[in-house]
Amino acid sequence: MKLSKLVGERLKDAPAGVTSKSHAYLIRAGYIKQVSNGIYTLLPPAQRINLKLQEIIREEMDAIDGQECLFPVVMPRELWDLSGRYSSIAEELLRFKDRTGHDMVLGMTHEEAAVHAVLGSLKSYDQLPFMIYQIQTKYRDEARPRAGLIRVKEFTMKDAYSFHENQTDLEQYYKKVYDSYFKIFNRMGMKKVISVHSDSGMMGGKVADEFQLLTDIGEDTIIVCPHCDTASNVDVASSIPEENEHIFGVKTEVFTGEAKTIDEVCSNLNKTPNQIAKAVCYAVIGDSKRVVIAFLRGDKEVNEAKLKVLVGADIVIKDLSESGLVKGNIGCINLNIENAEIYYDKSLEGLESFVTGANKEGYHFIGVSMTRDVRPEKYVDISKVKEGEKCPVCGNNLLVKRGIEIGNIFQLGTRYTKQMGLTVSLPDGSTINPIMGCYGIGVGRCLASIAEESSDEKGLCWPMAIAPWHIYLCPLRLDDENVRRQAERLYSRLQAENFEVLYDDRIASAGTKLTDSELMGIPVRIVISPKTIENGNIEISIRATGEKFFVSEEALSKKLDEIIVY
Amino acid sequence: MKLSKLVGERLKDAPAGVTSKSHAYLIRAGYIKQVSNGIYTLLPPAQRINLKLQEIIREEMDAIDGQECLFPVVMPRELWDLSGRYSSIAEELLRFKDRTGHDMVLGMTHEEAAVHAVLGSLKSYDQLPFMIYQIQTKYRDEARPRAGLIRVKEFTMKDAYSFHENQTDLEQYYKKVYDSYFKIFNRMGMKKVISVHSDSGMMGGKVADEFQLLTDIGEDTIIVCPHCDTASNVDVASSIPEENEHIFGVKTEVFTGEAKTIDEVCSNLNKTPNQIAKAVCYAVIGDSKRVVIAFLRGDKEVNEAKLKVLVGADIVIKDLSESGLVKGNIGCINLNIENAEIYYDKSLEGLESFVTGANKEGYHFIGVSMTRDVRPEKYVDISKVKEGEKCPVCGNNLLVKRGIEIGNIFQLGTRYTKQMGLTVSLPDGSTINPIMGCYGIGVGRCLASIAEESSDEKGLCWPMAIAPWHIYLCPLRLDDENVRRQAERLYSRLQAENFEVLYDDRIASAGTKLTDSELMGIPVRIVISPKTIENGNIEISIRATGEKFFVSEEALSKKLDEIIVY
Repeated sequence: MKLSKLVGERLKDAPAGVTSKSHAYLIRAGYIKQVSNGIYTLLPPAQRINLKLQEIIREEMDAIDGQECLFPVVMPRELWDLSGRYSSIAEELLRFKDRTGHDMVLGMTHEEAAVHAVLGSLKSYDQLPFMIYQIQTKYRDEARPRAGLIRVKEFTMKDAYSFHENQTDLEQYYKKVYDSYFKIFNRMGMKKVISVHSDSGMMGGKVADEFQLLTDIGEDTIIVCPHCDTASNVDVASSIPEENEHIFGVKTEVFTGEAKTIDEVCSNLNKTPNQIAKAVCYAVIGDSKRVVIAFLRGDKEVNEAKLKVLVGADIVIKDLSESGLVKGNIGCINLNIENAEIYYDKSLEGLESFVTGANKEGYHFIGVSMTRDVRPEKYVDISKVKEGEKCPVCGNNLLVKRGIEIGNIFQLGTRYTKQMGLTVSLPDGSTINPIMGCYGIGVGRCLASIAEESSDEKGLCWPMAIAPWHIYLCPLRLDDENVRRQAERLYSRLQAENFEVLYDDRIASAGTKLTDSELMGIPVRIVISPKTIENGNIEISIRATGEKFFVSEEALSKKLDEIIVY
Repeated sequence: MKLSKLVGERLKDAPAGVTSKSHAYLIRAGYIKQVSNGIYTLLPPAQRINLKLQEIIREEMDAIDGQECLFPVVMPRELWDLSGRYSSIAEELLRFKDRTGHDMVLGMTHEEAAVHAVLGSLKSYDQLPFMIYQIQTKYRDEARPRAGLIRVKEFTMKDAYSFHENQTDLEQYYKKVYDSYFKIFNRMGMKKVISVHSDSGMMGGKVADEFQLLTDIGEDTIIVCPHCDTASNVDVASSIPEENEHIFGVKTEVFTGEAKTIDEVCSNLNKTPNQIAKAVCYAVIGDSKRVVIAFLRGDKEVNEAKLKVLVGADIVIKDLSESGLVKGNIGCINLNIENAEIYYDKSLEGLESFVTGANKEGYHFIGVSMTRDVRPEKYVDISKVKEGEKCPVCGNNLLVKRGIEIGNIFQLGTRYTKQMGLTVSLPDGSTINPIMGCYGIGVGRCLASIAEESSDEKGLCWPMAIAPWHIYLCPLRLDDENVRRQAERLYSRLQAENFEVLYDDRIASAGTKLTDSELMGIPVRIVISPKTIENGNIEISIRATGEKFFVSEEALSKKLDEIIVY
């Protein structure tokens, strides 16, 4: 490819508002162009990477006996009614009417389509197990697209669905996919990928793992144990509860005046946050009669993902003043509210002399005891794990990291097969619903994640296996007849030898050319100039390491073969 | 791939209402599954073909310097407002609102996106020419999906857009794409593809060609000259007007009573249809004040596509009785209607003694002369060419054929670049709007067309280059230990040798297996059985020709290498 004809341009600066490195470089180097908020065109270099990523995924899916299908982007409501997801998924599911007034959706995931594909033809246990997958455009009506290709509305995704006779078989296959995913991300050149236990979210099912590329710009919080390598999404992470001091106090109502926040109460009463039980109040979305109050130690934060699971519905923070509660003085003693669902976090267990609101303007209790004064039926885990808490597996200190979720795998169970009436007959004539697993990889997100991880202050720096081109042929002083002749000769020859070459055929300054080659992140650069011709050699430099080699024109291909391996 | 695990099933019969051969076989052989009217899932064998078709297209597009991009499926209204197509395209363009109430469309073609992709970075003439393309899912809210993958709502399409400095350059490139298309369809194994002149429809622009696969189930009518090979879509086809007899009659009003249709008038007056001038009346869509009356010879039919171009808007047949016209007696003498736009077809030219309605209940005129009594300003070509009319190029008899449009190419001109403000500067500092071409291939439609063309009474019969697998390994009597052992051995070996093998590992009757192998259309079948083992050879048969070869196990791969060429 000649750079002078390559669609797109190299920019000095990223547009205003672009904060992540990958987003800035992908725009500046001419890889992507925004069409609308969260909607991008992939320009040729990005599409070349996209195809290479897809091919790696395809090979690895085929290697674990995946059968590639193509499910539709547009699906009728009826299909999503079968699983109940037409109603249960919020606004991310784009719904519209076609010209006949028929309700349709844009696919954001394809469990329903996958079950539909085999309904009717899957009849007997001996057809199991199998896995079907697709690599297809998806649309999620994302409220807050961000960071270029990291969180978008339209994206290319590989989604796979496996069907099994029993849980053991699912688990065996799940492990295969798990291993396959590490192979895929490794082949793509990602270095810091870890798997973390996760929440299965809207998919249903119980066991789920995410594959996270660790990076400071990641939007997911991950709790990692550096000792035993246990890692979980903060949404499901737990830690060993800290031991509380078992010293009983004397329950006493005290005047705290304007002190409302944890800080104010601490300073007013000369306490520390871990001596306070605070309350956080929620409304339940879709049921205006339900309210939820979570009590937890003052130094903890509510983990809403965990609380949601217990509540069984979406929740949102709510001021319960209208229900008669006193904001800033809510406590677990004398709490007078009808039908509230109350949860006590495990951080409160064993706390026998703590402060809590007196449910009365200007007053708190001190010296409250959980076992003597509150006596909750049970304690639940609804707090967010923080750095330094203890690993539930090995007891060592946990770390908090940030990551980009590039893939996820779920053990779905029979939710979809049951609701859609998919059964297979067993040898004894009885029938069961096959157990499913589902497995996703965001292709565009991989591209952006790699851009994020493999880049430096000069620009992008693609791993060899997925680079849009392997070689940036960079003749300096193309106005010099000898340089031009050698450049054209090398371009023809390298193409004939099936090297992937981007030829900077522009008449431009050395500075512009070298800077652009670094910005674009092509792994190998070949520089020729009047000087290299005088010296009778060719300069090869490696983008990632800065290493340089000087070889003769004859020895060039051999050296490139040594360098370009993946 | 083992057939026992292959997703999908082989059916004895196609579902009710399936009329085309390709549709029936693709369903019966387990290639596709309908999700909704005009929306299909491609099951693994069809997706394997789909990928091979895409790869052929990609290679040929790259060979003419195409740069692959990926434009979004979902686009904002603003982009389509720029070209005016948000308003001008009817209901096929699916419009919807996203969660924020923003108007969006589902892409059915990507001229706007292609111009947007280069807006800003394309600045100078020396960046021209270039071509960008994508292979992407498209959605057209089709009113009447039909014939399986032939006419669907959702489909995979390759669409390409080229940009040029001037018309000569566009024409040169247009010719390159034209040749490339024949290469592509040829590589895909299609035999009866012809190019035909066509209408550029909603794309705008003037010169356009369609690539049609000739088949009786095609929905397009094509006028072909077998002598000089000129071919046109009937929408734009013309013929040499027949000479009319120049014998003047005496204009006389005659009573024709209930005679209204051409047949009735002919029989009443003892005339032939080519002695009558008939009227066809239209309303103009979107402008209730305009009416159109087309006069043409009684043996001709109106070509609405041509008439539409003259009218400059969509039209629909209308009964003008309300405007005072007498149905069945409308004629070009004493026609009393205000503001009607009247068109005279060239078939009427030189007709000097014809019958036409008298615009009076029960009466016609006879002996009417065009030059003496009607004297139209001009004659236009608004009639449909019929078989046997004369080729406008060489004068020989034209044939009427039917075809499936599998590709099309358009010279777009500057419509999009002008409206979207895309300019390039010329060496003299002036600026111009680049001239565009656009080029489409329907991938799914190619698949269905090939299925239609390359099939017989037994089932599908894929060309080697795009077959989902090359070899159907068909052991009969798998319960025989020797057969099973040889089958497993061959399956492993052929896979190791990189042959694409579908292994019929079912314990099923010879009849079922042989029938399924034919239905699925895999090009090469290997049969092994107790008998072939006894004879010490292996039976190879060719699906397309029925040829059989018997070779030893040692000689198998060599023979397969000879057969599997494309």
